[in-house]
Amino acid sequence: MQKKIHLINRPKGTPTHDDFKVVEAPIDSPEQGEVLIRTKYISVDPYLRGRMNEGKSYVEPFKLDEVISSAVIGQVEESKSDRFSKGDVVLGALGWQEYSVVKEDAIRKVDHHQAPASAYLSVLGMTGLTAYFGLLEIGKPQEGETVVVSGAAGAVGSVVGQIAKIKGARVVGIAGSDEKISYLKDELGFDAAINYKTQDVPKALEEACPNGIDVYFENVGGEIGDAVFPLLNNFARIPVCGAISSYNNVDQDLGPRVQGHLIKTSSLMQGFTVGNYSSRFGEGAKELAGWLSEGKLKYEETVTEGFDHTIDAFLDLFKGANLGKAIVKVDEIQE
Amino acid sequence: MQKKIHLINRPKGTPTHDDFKVVEAPIDSPEQGEVLIRTKYISVDPYLRGRMNEGKSYVEPFKLDEVISSAVIGQVEESKSDRFSKGDVVLGALGWQEYSVVKEDAIRKVDHHQAPASAYLSVLGMTGLTAYFGLLEIGKPQEGETVVVSGAAGAVGSVVGQIAKIKGARVVGIAGSDEKISYLKDELGFDAAINYKTQDVPKALEEACPNGIDVYFENVGGEIGDAVFPLLNNFARIPVCGAISSYNNVDQDLGPRVQGHLIKTSSLMQGFTVGNYSSRFGEGAKELAGWLSEGKLKYEETVTEGFDHTIDAFLDLFKGANLGKAIVKVDEIQE
Repeated sequence: MQKKIHLINRPKGTPTHDDFKVVEAPIDSPEQGEVLIRTKYISVDPYLRGRMNEGKSYVEPFKLDEVISSAVIGQVEESKSDRFSKGDVVLGALGWQEYSVVKEDAIRKVDHHQAPASAYLSVLGMTGLTAYFGLLEIGKPQEGETVVVSGAAGAVGSVVGQIAKIKGARVVGIAGSDEKISYLKDELGFDAAINYKTQDVPKALEEACPNGIDVYFENVGGEIGDAVFPLLNNFARIPVCGAISSYNNVDQDLGPRVQGHLIKTSSLMQGFTVGNYSSRFGEGAKELAGWLSEGKLKYEETVTEGFDHTIDAFLDLFKGANLGKAIVKVDEIQE
Repeated sequence: MQKKIHLINRPKGTPTHDDFKVVEAPIDSPEQGEVLIRTKYISVDPYLRGRMNEGKSYVEPFKLDEVISSAVIGQVEESKSDRFSKGDVVLGALGWQEYSVVKEDAIRKVDHHQAPASAYLSVLGMTGLTAYFGLLEIGKPQEGETVVVSGAAGAVGSVVGQIAKIKGARVVGIAGSDEKISYLKDELGFDAAINYKTQDVPKALEEACPNGIDVYFENVGGEIGDAVFPLLNNFARIPVCGAISSYNNVDQDLGPRVQGHLIKTSSLMQGFTVGNYSSRFGEGAKELAGWLSEGKLKYEETVTEGFDHTIDAFLDLFKGANLGKAIVKVDEIQE
């Protein structure tokens, strides 16, 4: 038998343990063209909150009383596919469960000797690609421009800021603890960083951006985003990646309308999801891996140990507790 | 002596007659390279409200106790330029005054036999070009898509809707009187039109857009714009041209934040001003003139007669009184 995590309620506001249930289930056997995978690392991500609601979005909502899924790194335990052998380390969108049986098309091998297996859930995976395409395709930072990123110490934001530095921009991060601020400035080389919990964000932003703002990479929404609009330069670009501050809102999310600022500055604001760029993932992953191996790109993980703490790791996302990518380590990779 | 209109107060909220003063001034004489122009038609436009405030925007604020200016059609009364002769009909950014002396570089001739002189203030002028570039460069309507335009019976909106029809889109207009609704549907061939003063806009929009909204050309801002976001299709485009509903706001303009909708649908929202496309005005004016002569493009003017009613004509803009372009006719063109 194994454990699986089901969604049993559509959360109202901030999710709690009551919205989830750990169930016991048998371990299936693979049929021809399938493999049995033992779960090693589970990715927990803010966007999963949206899938817990009903209604249309860019991904299907999770079904009630069924297993939740996200990006998972596993190791092949038993293969009935010509493409995979026992021991292969693989990546796929798999269930929050200890073992999965999947079709060979649903997974791909990753090289865990080139980079740690968990990196394929973060800097070399969806969050790295999200930063890469959102910043470069929508934000288009130019040398000497000012790039502001919110959620700057998170899995996406930390990569956004570092790519902006690689492109020669001045980078200002916004995050929620002094530890994160130090990390951004001292470890990642951000030019300035603002602690939104202790500083007056509009004032601090104005001081940190004496030449205005050319690119704002939006990860959080809410009042932090609001503070950016009055400082936009002409032809500024705003990739809108996330709005974690509002994901648990029950009431309508009200704020100053942005239209006037967009008109005054001829600025662009564009929502996106990484899936829009799926045909170019190879190109992005290759460039990210190059920067990683050259030491130009650093990443952090907040690792929660043990399958039983998966729900805790997910709930912690909304407390701003994680530095870098939040990952659950279920088990060691077997060499 | 002649009359000039000065701005004497920065309006708080909606402008009133008390913010303006009509002053008497001598008529200057042109020096070498200059011409004396008699004012024939004055363009009154919502964007001028922004120039009455202090602070940075895409155009300089008007100075207090100086003459207001906008697009003007005039006729050369006396020329000390080789390029212009007495009787030429010219277009320029000139003062709200009965006579102007300007350098030859500040004006250009228009052919008032090819189209009525006033058309160069509307469909063949800035408002037509605003519609043309905003819709085609940002909105990019495709055949069969649904285009919604607010301020649809106005100088910009009416041209936006007609170009969208030319491009094969389904067009839904939002305007503020039954007379305007009839005009949009019966005269301009819009597929549907909504009276925001008498109808429930969110409900009416949903009914008028059974396939969702692909392009929203934003002229008004406020609650009308808010109603569009929940209906956006994936990869929708929103050219943000104006926000007349908020131009006179004293308090902060609050509304539902849009970030979540942009993310869910990967939609783009871009502010612009027609000046961004100035290097391509010739191309736009030529295509507009072609559609006009083929009868594919119609336009209306709300003409206020007499220089003394210029301020009234401007103030009427904020009452939603005008159908098509608001123009002051100061005097007949002399043949």
